[in-house]
Amino acid sequence: MSPSKTHHMEPWRLTASEVLAKIQADEISVQEYAESLLERIKARDEDVKAWAYLDEKMVMYHAKLLDELPKKNRGPLHGLPIAVKDVIYTKDMPTQFNSPLYEGHFPETDAASVRILRHAGALVFGKTTTTEFAAIHVGPKTHNPHDPLRTPGGSSSGSGAAVADFQVPMALGTQTGGSMIRPASFNGIYGFKPTWNSVSREGQKVYALMYDTLGWYARCVEDLVLLADVFALQDDEEEEEYSFQGVEGARFAICKTVVWPMAGPGTQDALARAADLLRTHGAEVEEIDLPAEFDNVPEWYRIGLHTEGRTAFLPEYRIGKDKIGQVLIEHVENADNFTRKMQLEASDKLAAMRPVFDKIASEYTAVITPSVPDEAPVGLESTGSHIFCAMWSGLHTPVLNVPGFKGDHDMPIGISLVAPRYRDRHLLEVGKAVGEIFEAEGGWDTKIL
Amino acid sequence: MSPSKTHHMEPWRLTASEVLAKIQADEISVQEYAESLLERIKARDEDVKAWAYLDEKMVMYHAKLLDELPKKNRGPLHGLPIAVKDVIYTKDMPTQFNSPLYEGHFPETDAASVRILRHAGALVFGKTTTTEFAAIHVGPKTHNPHDPLRTPGGSSSGSGAAVADFQVPMALGTQTGGSMIRPASFNGIYGFKPTWNSVSREGQKVYALMYDTLGWYARCVEDLVLLADVFALQDDEEEEEYSFQGVEGARFAICKTVVWPMAGPGTQDALARAADLLRTHGAEVEEIDLPAEFDNVPEWYRIGLHTEGRTAFLPEYRIGKDKIGQVLIEHVENADNFTRKMQLEASDKLAAMRPVFDKIASEYTAVITPSVPDEAPVGLESTGSHIFCAMWSGLHTPVLNVPGFKGDHDMPIGISLVAPRYRDRHLLEVGKAVGEIFEAEGGWDTKIL
Repeated sequence: MSPSKTHHMEPWRLTASEVLAKIQADEISVQEYAESLLERIKARDEDVKAWAYLDEKMVMYHAKLLDELPKKNRGPLHGLPIAVKDVIYTKDMPTQFNSPLYEGHFPETDAASVRILRHAGALVFGKTTTTEFAAIHVGPKTHNPHDPLRTPGGSSSGSGAAVADFQVPMALGTQTGGSMIRPASFNGIYGFKPTWNSVSREGQKVYALMYDTLGWYARCVEDLVLLADVFALQDDEEEEEYSFQGVEGARFAICKTVVWPMAGPGTQDALARAADLLRTHGAEVEEIDLPAEFDNVPEWYRIGLHTEGRTAFLPEYRIGKDKIGQVLIEHVENADNFTRKMQLEASDKLAAMRPVFDKIASEYTAVITPSVPDEAPVGLESTGSHIFCAMWSGLHTPVLNVPGFKGDHDMPIGISLVAPRYRDRHLLEVGKAVGEIFEAEGGWDTKIL
Repeated sequence: MSPSKTHHMEPWRLTASEVLAKIQADEISVQEYAESLLERIKARDEDVKAWAYLDEKMVMYHAKLLDELPKKNRGPLHGLPIAVKDVIYTKDMPTQFNSPLYEGHFPETDAASVRILRHAGALVFGKTTTTEFAAIHVGPKTHNPHDPLRTPGGSSSGSGAAVADFQVPMALGTQTGGSMIRPASFNGIYGFKPTWNSVSREGQKVYALMYDTLGWYARCVEDLVLLADVFALQDDEEEEEYSFQGVEGARFAICKTVVWPMAGPGTQDALARAADLLRTHGAEVEEIDLPAEFDNVPEWYRIGLHTEGRTAFLPEYRIGKDKIGQVLIEHVENADNFTRKMQLEASDKLAAMRPVFDKIASEYTAVITPSVPDEAPVGLESTGSHIFCAMWSGLHTPVLNVPGFKGDHDMPIGISLVAPRYRDRHLLEVGKAVGEIFEAEGGWDTKIL
């Protein structure tokens, strides 16, 4: 969704960048904007159910404090509401992981990310739903705002749905497999997973240290850039030949990966259309095959995930085995019978592929690859497959989901842009230009408005 | 210190394994034991100052609850007191990181490790001192119990000192550089850093994800094994030819590493004496040189540490730059001017060395290497050098500090035993046999008793 054009609209329709400009110009107060979002939520919550915790009074209290703050003391995100996935600690709200073991769990501290956001003046709005521990595929109560019969994806279900539904302009999510990118695609929004470990994940539930990554959602790339600034994402200075000068003359690689047979018609069409559109706009687009060794990445990824889960969920297994998902029990009990030798081999070989992929990807403006197999599936039981995301979670690359395409049921489908590690700012810059094209000409438009 | 021989001694002199047997045999109650420790602390705290937080009433309250627990409901660590380094969350005690920014910080949740310990019946005794965020080398208030003019080392200063001083039988520490092994050596106790990521570090301050490791201290290997059981450390089944059958016939590698010129006379003597003792007891001992590429490990380690610190301390830098250590400011400001390219190269190359080292080490019963340059230095300002530990923190191997030697000032000096990743149980088994020899014949005896 490109920045809104009309001045006579409800504040909740604004993007974060738009509202920030209005707050800075005294055209709207933080309280007015927050009230508008709360009204939107009130109207829509029964259908979407994106929130695990939302205290309207507290929101308005903090909005008032922000309005009262002298201008010289205001941060770069002054007054911008942000939703926080309920696996991230917030000092003034419970953090419950969608687990009965953590009902009422209220660590009175902020995660590193939330500390940074508050200091920048963001309005921490509430906690959004997640699958259990952001680790399983059984959906929470949340519905896809574009079709209540469908999943919003997971595990960052509430964050993805709330941003798509104009209930909040930005949200934090996390990804271990596909938990950022999948909901972004299913909800038709931008989702950005920065380079692994480029943002502190202190104060989050751990599933797999080697994959867990904090990321963020918004309805335009400008808003993602606001957060990239605050989180101090920084690329190396680019050599001139690699700097992005627009889609015309840029060089994209289409990478279907070894799991391409999992792509349904919606994703097949979207990828083909993406390539066509970029070519139409003057880019070179070539299909690449990664070297055969990359075919092992999904399995190495899976071994890493399960063996890290073995360690991560030991406390919950000990304390309440009868109250955690079967998948987590299997991780702790090592139902796969992975040996330490297999675990180390998978981890070491995956590590060795990272610089190899970086080198390949550095030859291109960006790598273009599916985000998901297809549209959001019907039903809330399953949040869908992470099969197209696992590769990039394992390789630690930044990934940006760009919306713009649609499937057979008019549901959104996004495409992933991938870059080498620590080319996060470059990827956002490319994503902005590519997103303008995909949104305008990809064929999908949100019907929520 | 080998298990105590006399029955007529103060309970605080007991090791955890000894007291566990007595509790199980109804020879002592948890309350009696806890009271004895509190008396010991009362007598010694002015000289040692190991505690950041200790609430005697809460200790006795929990001790009473444990005594009242029906035997069938008791866990494997029933009644065993354990101290927790003050960078690890405890739901009923503050966690303050020795930072003025976190004064009164009280996240009402337990770290994963503390959850596991409580569920196993351990008595979480109190919080022990640390250097600021376990990240700098300026000591806290704690004195070395063997000589109050000297540092106990850091950053797990209080945990190391409290265990050495018989104030508690076991303690949790953490290591990013040398924060477990250095205090173990300086205080003359066993310190065990298991394989990186084999124990969950959820709920701890993050410095560098790729190095941060939870570990534990005790006065005998049996006690470390109790904790290894509870934390579910598990090696692959060993082939017969590699299984440990005692020091006689075992094959040890002495590995001085590229930083050997930093070894003072105390460590030089200790290493030579360790080799002699093992030979005397029938082991083969050979000195090995690691391939030349390992000479780069300390620098790759350092680049990783600083660049991870750049991310980890961003919140504290933003919120209170004037209240954090200069080293942390330099990390965030990237005073080293490390590029992302340098950062990734260091990290990728270090990752590539891990399986190489594992293969070399797997040819031996254990690798023997210095823990520290020498005895604990005089003064509390500096907690000493991590130069001999950084290699193993970077390579993710398990490390056991074994006490038994002494320096020119009769202060303890330990020696590190190192094994390939995920041979933790093997290393503890070897360490038990080696420790008996070093403690009996290495020349050092604690004068605290």
